[in-house]
Amino acid sequence: MKMRQDRIERAQRLMAAQGMVGMMIMTRDDYRFFFGAVRVQPRAIIPLAGKPTLIAFAGEGPELREEVSAAAHVRTFQDVGEQMTAVRETFNDLIAAGRPDDFVAAGGESPRVGMQLWFDTPAFLTDLFRKLNRQVELVSSDPVMDELRMVKEPAEVALLAEAQAVAAIGMTTARRLIAPGVTGHEVATEALYAMMQAGAEGTSTPIYVNAGVRSCWNHGLADRQPIRRGDLVVVNLTPQIEGYGANLARTFVVGQPADWQRQLIGTYLQMREEAVAMLKPGARVMEIDARGAEICAAAGLGEYHIDGIAHGIGLRFEETPASTIIKGHRGVALRSVMTMAVGHTILALPGRGGARVEDVYLVTEEGGRLLEPYPVDDWIVTE
Amino acid sequence: MKMRQDRIERAQRLMAAQGMVGMMIMTRDDYRFFFGAVRVQPRAIIPLAGKPTLIAFAGEGPELREEVSAAAHVRTFQDVGEQMTAVRETFNDLIAAGRPDDFVAAGGESPRVGMQLWFDTPAFLTDLFRKLNRQVELVSSDPVMDELRMVKEPAEVALLAEAQAVAAIGMTTARRLIAPGVTGHEVATEALYAMMQAGAEGTSTPIYVNAGVRSCWNHGLADRQPIRRGDLVVVNLTPQIEGYGANLARTFVVGQPADWQRQLIGTYLQMREEAVAMLKPGARVMEIDARGAEICAAAGLGEYHIDGIAHGIGLRFEETPASTIIKGHRGVALRSVMTMAVGHTILALPGRGGARVEDVYLVTEEGGRLLEPYPVDDWIVTE
Repeated sequence: MKMRQDRIERAQRLMAAQGMVGMMIMTRDDYRFFFGAVRVQPRAIIPLAGKPTLIAFAGEGPELREEVSAAAHVRTFQDVGEQMTAVRETFNDLIAAGRPDDFVAAGGESPRVGMQLWFDTPAFLTDLFRKLNRQVELVSSDPVMDELRMVKEPAEVALLAEAQAVAAIGMTTARRLIAPGVTGHEVATEALYAMMQAGAEGTSTPIYVNAGVRSCWNHGLADRQPIRRGDLVVVNLTPQIEGYGANLARTFVVGQPADWQRQLIGTYLQMREEAVAMLKPGARVMEIDARGAEICAAAGLGEYHIDGIAHGIGLRFEETPASTIIKGHRGVALRSVMTMAVGHTILALPGRGGARVEDVYLVTEEGGRLLEPYPVDDWIVTE
Repeated sequence: MKMRQDRIERAQRLMAAQGMVGMMIMTRDDYRFFFGAVRVQPRAIIPLAGKPTLIAFAGEGPELREEVSAAAHVRTFQDVGEQMTAVRETFNDLIAAGRPDDFVAAGGESPRVGMQLWFDTPAFLTDLFRKLNRQVELVSSDPVMDELRMVKEPAEVALLAEAQAVAAIGMTTARRLIAPGVTGHEVATEALYAMMQAGAEGTSTPIYVNAGVRSCWNHGLADRQPIRRGDLVVVNLTPQIEGYGANLARTFVVGQPADWQRQLIGTYLQMREEAVAMLKPGARVMEIDARGAEICAAAGLGEYHIDGIAHGIGLRFEETPASTIIKGHRGVALRSVMTMAVGHTILALPGRGGARVEDVYLVTEEGGRLLEPYPVDDWIVTE
């Protein structure tokens, strides 16, 4: 446990402006950000003022109390019911200890509780939380967490670069194995092993090895279909180092590429190159996408262009701006030292094949700075 | 895609009794159950009557339409907004096509939509669904899905047994590696590789290799702390075969066990043995837990007993009865040919160490029948 008191204090200052009595931490990325530790069911409360409360399984109590010492309160539970009781009592105490006016922002009627409300927060826990905590209003914690997390610390950038380097090891392994008759599952098995041997904790998404018509998929899987000569093969790797995720995607062609395959990959690389050049403070993904749409249109592929070529990346696989998840994020202005994955959307001829080429960049005044190089021109797999 | 028309029709008969106009499929396990396919963002609607509607990324459209042919409608989207529009329009059409009375169960005011509301359903999607579909009431799909899924088909039991066999390969690998100085991450890396080579798609939970005081954890991780002589080491493996998950846990001691360690493991095995004997139709987890509490008390470990020793397992890692997640599930009567993981809860002396020994069993009139054997008495790792 490496509790980050500085981050907690920054969060508290931001919470005050949002009328929050506290933040309920429910996700692994938020928990790791504040407490430097991993829990499968992370539960903690960061109050507007004072020490956080960690809520843990009974058996973890003594170890946790010793680790955090006087820096945090620890409450333990044996089941979900007790966990929820600990949450409710903690918030009730926080409200009772403060002046209600402190918590109620302009227009609000109840003290607010911030929570991450993305893919990783289970619906049944937010429903249960609302039902049992009617004294508070549940709101998104994004206005606090985005300020803390969008711009990365140097150590975070280093971990993201390390994750990309591990992904590169996986991609080299995958590239070497891809051949007619080999399955996506075989490629994924070896790539994952290579990445874990190189230090990956795991991956933040399943490994995708999408071959043939399946290369059109936005997401994917590693299936048992043998790769065939002439296939486009999209490989997407997301190993994690201390929770920070990589995002490295390449599209290969097995054998001599057809003209339409050359055009697809060529157009993608051109779109990506211009996107990277635009990764400067103040730029918005909507502007980058508009340029991408122009490039696709000029190549006669306009109808296949999809918005959301870039997204934030860090402790969460997709962070603000999460352009494909939340449309409004396409209007978020980039800042220096944000980390962005570029090459997220697929450019696909439905029913035939698709292409993606993705790396992670730092936003700088000079445009995107690549965190870790991996070849982009080595996409023709000869036998 | 192996669409299961028989399961869809059974679901439709059950939906009628619940006043549901349809079910919204949002999770991988439900999608796989009905459509025999994997999607990272699975979205489908099963109406009260007629063909299901599959909602997919634009690029997947042609492939999907060819696969399902006339058996399902296919709608495509390019972003979450379009996805949600497709959902709303589909439900509006379903309501318009039926008589409202058909959908409104006793006491209900709106047509109901069933959805899985567990860990895998993201809160932001249910919130968005409710906001955009005010014409319907969102309810848990459990009354339908539990009837379909609790009792397993023979092919499902075979897949669960295969998953346990793959887990056994991983456990053998882990057992061979555990030694002073080796890290949990090293053990997990090799165990995962062995399981994937044996056919696992991945795991349904992270691999746990919890050593020393961390063996007290209910969940866990594979960390970089070297295993030490005298440690209890809990290993938990959950490989998946065609979506069906294994659950195999063993607790090892590195070197000669201390008396308290022998007692902990001995008590656990006794508790488990009696639990397995009780796995008969009509039994409830609360009764099994009560017996476990007696056994722990008799061993002087009463205060450390935790409820929820057994849970359902199938396409989801924890299925009904999910004893540790939902207290009410401890009162669910077991049925023949349900599959149950027994040995879920940790028995831990907080601050010292804990034990778990878990396998998957079929519920039969004679008690639990082990799906796949793995030694339970081979827990002392000598150097």
